[in-house]
Amino acid sequence: MQRLVKADNLVYTCSPFHPPKMTVKPGETFQVETELTSGQWLQELGDDPDTRERGFPYVNPATGPVYIDGAKPGDALVVHIEAIDLADIGYTQIVPGKNPFPNWIRETEWGHQYKVVRIADGFVHWSETIKIPVAPMIGVIGVAPEIEAISNADNGVHGGNLDIQEVTAGNRVLLPVRVEGALLHVGDVHAVQGDGELCCAGGIETRSALTLRVELIAAPQAMTWPRIETADHLLAIGCARPLDDAFRIAVQELVLWMEADYGFSQPEALMLLGQVAEARCTQFVNPKFTYVCKIKKRYLSQ
Amino acid sequence: MQRLVKADNLVYTCSPFHPPKMTVKPGETFQVETELTSGQWLQELGDDPDTRERGFPYVNPATGPVYIDGAKPGDALVVHIEAIDLADIGYTQIVPGKNPFPNWIRETEWGHQYKVVRIADGFVHWSETIKIPVAPMIGVIGVAPEIEAISNADNGVHGGNLDIQEVTAGNRVLLPVRVEGALLHVGDVHAVQGDGELCCAGGIETRSALTLRVELIAAPQAMTWPRIETADHLLAIGCARPLDDAFRIAVQELVLWMEADYGFSQPEALMLLGQVAEARCTQFVNPKFTYVCKIKKRYLSQ
Amino acid sequence: MQRLVKADNLVYTCSPFHPPKMTVKPGETFQVETELTSGQWLQELGDDPDTRERGFPYVNPATGPVYIDGAKPGDALVVHIEAIDLADIGYTQIVPGKNPFPNWIRETEWGHQYKVVRIADGFVHWSETIKIPVAPMIGVIGVAPEIEAISNADNGVHGGNLDIQEVTAGNRVLLPVRVEGALLHVGDVHAVQGDGELCCAGGIETRSALTLRVELIAAPQAMTWPRIETADHLLAIGCARPLDDAFRIAVQELVLWMEADYGFSQPEALMLLGQVAEARCTQFVNPKFTYVCKIKKRYLSQ
Amino acid sequence: MQRLVKADNLVYTCSPFHPPKMTVKPGETFQVETELTSGQWLQELGDDPDTRERGFPYVNPATGPVYIDGAKPGDALVVHIEAIDLADIGYTQIVPGKNPFPNWIRETEWGHQYKVVRIADGFVHWSETIKIPVAPMIGVIGVAPEIEAISNADNGVHGGNLDIQEVTAGNRVLLPVRVEGALLHVGDVHAVQGDGELCCAGGIETRSALTLRVELIAAPQAMTWPRIETADHLLAIGCARPLDDAFRIAVQELVLWMEADYGFSQPEALMLLGQVAEARCTQFVNPKFTYVCKIKKRYLSQ
Repeated sequence: MQRLVKADNLVYTCSPFHPPKMTVKPGETFQVETELTSGQWLQELGDDPDTRERGFPYVNPATGPVYIDGAKPGDALVVHIEAIDLADIGYTQIVPGKNPFPNWIRETEWGHQYKVVRIADGFVHWSETIKIPVAPMIGVIGVAPEIEAISNADNGVHGGNLDIQEVTAGNRVLLPVRVEGALLHVGDVHAVQGDGELCCAGGIETRSALTLRVELIAAPQAMTWPRIETADHLLAIGCARPLDDAFRIAVQELVLWMEADYGFSQPEALMLLGQVAEARCTQFVNPKFTYVCKIKKRYLSQ
Repeated sequence: MQRLVKADNLVYTCSPFHPPKMTVKPGETFQVETELTSGQWLQELGDDPDTRERGFPYVNPATGPVYIDGAKPGDALVVHIEAIDLADIGYTQIVPGKNPFPNWIRETEWGHQYKVVRIADGFVHWSETIKIPVAPMIGVIGVAPEIEAISNADNGVHGGNLDIQEVTAGNRVLLPVRVEGALLHVGDVHAVQGDGELCCAGGIETRSALTLRVELIAAPQAMTWPRIETADHLLAIGCARPLDDAFRIAVQELVLWMEADYGFSQPEALMLLGQVAEARCTQFVNPKFTYVCKIKKRYLSQ
Repeated sequence: MQRLVKADNLVYTCSPFHPPKMTVKPGETFQVETELTSGQWLQELGDDPDTRERGFPYVNPATGPVYIDGAKPGDALVVHIEAIDLADIGYTQIVPGKNPFPNWIRETEWGHQYKVVRIADGFVHWSETIKIPVAPMIGVIGVAPEIEAISNADNGVHGGNLDIQEVTAGNRVLLPVRVEGALLHVGDVHAVQGDGELCCAGGIETRSALTLRVELIAAPQAMTWPRIETADHLLAIGCARPLDDAFRIAVQELVLWMEADYGFSQPEALMLLGQVAEARCTQFVNPKFTYVCKIKKRYLSQ
Repeated sequence: MQRLVKADNLVYTCSPFHPPKMTVKPGETFQVETELTSGQWLQELGDDPDTRERGFPYVNPATGPVYIDGAKPGDALVVHIEAIDLADIGYTQIVPGKNPFPNWIRETEWGHQYKVVRIADGFVHWSETIKIPVAPMIGVIGVAPEIEAISNADNGVHGGNLDIQEVTAGNRVLLPVRVEGALLHVGDVHAVQGDGELCCAGGIETRSALTLRVELIAAPQAMTWPRIETADHLLAIGCARPLDDAFRIAVQELVLWMEADYGFSQPEALMLLGQVAEARCTQFVNPKFTYVCKIKKRYLSQ
């Protein structure tokens, strides 16, 4: 099985200008190692955070890009997440001035707040009394835009810094291909993350080895933004500021999906979602916030 | 058991100027009947919506107010929801121009879109093939402000049109008392509601009989907005536009609650919420949107 | 000339529940005294601010209401502002946590920041070297809603805390009448105010004596929000959060006005405004922000 | 005098990856021709718009980049705008779904709305009766980011699609240099533009020849965003969504400027702006909106 290591393969933008680092074929299973989004200093539980990190635009390194043989504009890249193997150490920190609470949290008052934790036995060991079950997820997953080079701090219709808990093992992610080879890259894995990623960096940031498999299909007719499918749900995505617009985009994407693939009229789809939509902001800290809107597949059979 | 009927007891504002319609004592269990938020015409499955409704400000009638013996400013009113008995018919409709999708849904294009449904056997009977389990909830629950009279269409620190699914049987709602007797009112019951109440009116609107019990306690130190407690969760609330501010308020309320009642420092509380917060917008259609932020009680024992 | 004094005539809500304090006839010129929005302690240049003010909801006192003989729902009340006579002292202050810069200005860091100034010879005497020409304006002007009682801190289609510099001598303000007698009230006069009223309270707050005259007309067909007419401009108003929605409302009101009264089609009106609109946020601190959109009358003759 | 023609020199991103097209020295005066932002089809008054334009990301072509001899990261590039020579024809159009009024203007209802106009004698000849004085301005002006390639549709701390009326002859624009040579590009000239650029494309779009001169200085200490200086004003800029954040950024930039260069404390600066700020949204249609905040230089001498 091919494996893309981190060394020399970290990139800070989602870009058509990066040379491919590995080529895979549709149907092939491969592995990619990911680095911490920040805090590359972290090696042992007692390590202190190195505040001399390089800073923007050198944030959120992703590993890649991976060239997908045969991918071309008009395709959708289907990424099957087969496994997320976590490192045994992680950390979280409050980034003053970068969190969603401008009236509240600033470095001058709180100082640098961070926490290094052990990850073992399926739990994040938060404290003597608090253990949190791990729920591994990939924060950054994207393909190259046509002519732009977009910071990994940001996201968009190309994917990028989505920070969605459902980007996890067993699910599949669809991304709209814009350039030959698609140029997939991944990074920013979290052992667990609350809704909103409220302290900015944010979940339990950790290193990982990802096992992925990709397929190519014709891009679905009504697809603008990335999509996720789970065993039980369709999940549509919108990224924007303010949060209102992210929510609106996610709902609109889901209604158009229900119309194109399941035969609903738009008003029928919206009225049904009025009763059964499951929706939430998954990250509230990036340049554009992420909202997801889901429907259980069992409500799709009219 | 005392029971407040609908007739002559519907009000359209949360206001200190309404005369009390019933007086109850702390600890007493009582019942309140509620009317449909709109569509009072609805009696049978085949009924057509009467578009000649009175319109703003005569929307979202609530039943009350109920005078709570002994309630005074500085108290919190604890409302235990013992039961929500639903009618056997309900409806939902898309209100053009009042829904959260201004770019998309307008009367001139879609016409008046509504759906009348049967409620039976624990299900909303949506169509031949789609049945949705009922999850009854109270949309409007509030106490009188000190000198303002606030439309039932709106919400605020007094409660009002919150539209939160967790305002349901088995849970308790805390409301900050501003005037003698508190002047509680309730209405706008839904048989089920998706996140966002996306078509405006919105969930499955239906009539109900509520069984309630109230207590009085000193208002908790860090409480500004209403709170909900369930068997497993603390739930904090924020209402604002844009949605961003509603989310911020809900998180801040929860952090202050964790600090005051469970001994967390503010940074510790926020970092923990970064991993375990469960948060979402419950309604995205009222003058101020509602966001809730929850934490499982099992994470509160440091 | 009738004159409504401040004593016993200050109110904190725009409300149909206040008894009228004076009755005037259409065409009649009358005077109203106004109090400081906060800082009623202020008498001399050396006075210290009394931080023990009552706080919300007892903010932004207005003088009134004035009953307009013959006013009825469906009318528009035209208020001609004939003169604004300022006191010789005023002040401004930064209200921590209430200003538009939550990431920046908080009491714990800046302390209570205020400035008392002398008003004389047509100038605000800011410092030894800085003199600012006075530009007197009325911050609060409103009529009673139908069934709500709305805090003077807020604004809406009834007017209220608009904080628009063009509410000044020589101009006229149109307000939609909702109850018999209209129940006009006014207050919160500023000697001068920058765009945004950026420190919250905000302009140079001062006492005043207003000379007003009112007329009644049938409410213009396309009028939802208050309007202002100056010698040279039509000015439309929108109040909302976020600021985007306030701007949208103001533009839409102006397009509908140009359509109804000047024969433009909606696209023609919007394309012309694309070239000649003059628009800005006048206050950025109240519960709903105010945006105004203006067009020079000389562009209205197609 | 060097002159950069349009042919072969149009670019669609602000990017460090474009090869320089011309090199100039500080102090040198040079010319740059600019193309229409869209509607390159437009040649004569009777021309019909070609709706087969390429669409995103091929929008808002700028001419460049121009390499500035000696420019390096840490510098500020000062662009003196010496002249803007307009073509004799221009146009404006309403872009459905891209304008700021999502509830209102859509192609299906209004059709494609555009207007081609003659520019002569210092006026835009709008109709038989309406003539609008020209007020030429440069819509797109920017320098290359460090590692990103940002669409000309967007803007940011690098400049880009700012759409500010004060980017006009006689004024100077400061831009923070991020790469060697700065890589300046310009385009999107308007003969006149209303506040908000309300129909999207938006002002009177026209071709032009620009006469520019550049200087290099050390980047001012408190400068994050581009700045403009006019004969009478300092002008600070913020770009963001929602509009609220754009306004906040612009005010903060101006306060920091007043502190660093004119000796104000931050509270003094903000309180003075509370009285004399002149601020407005100049464009309300791009991915990030632009707000400007100005102060008259005569208020800067404490």
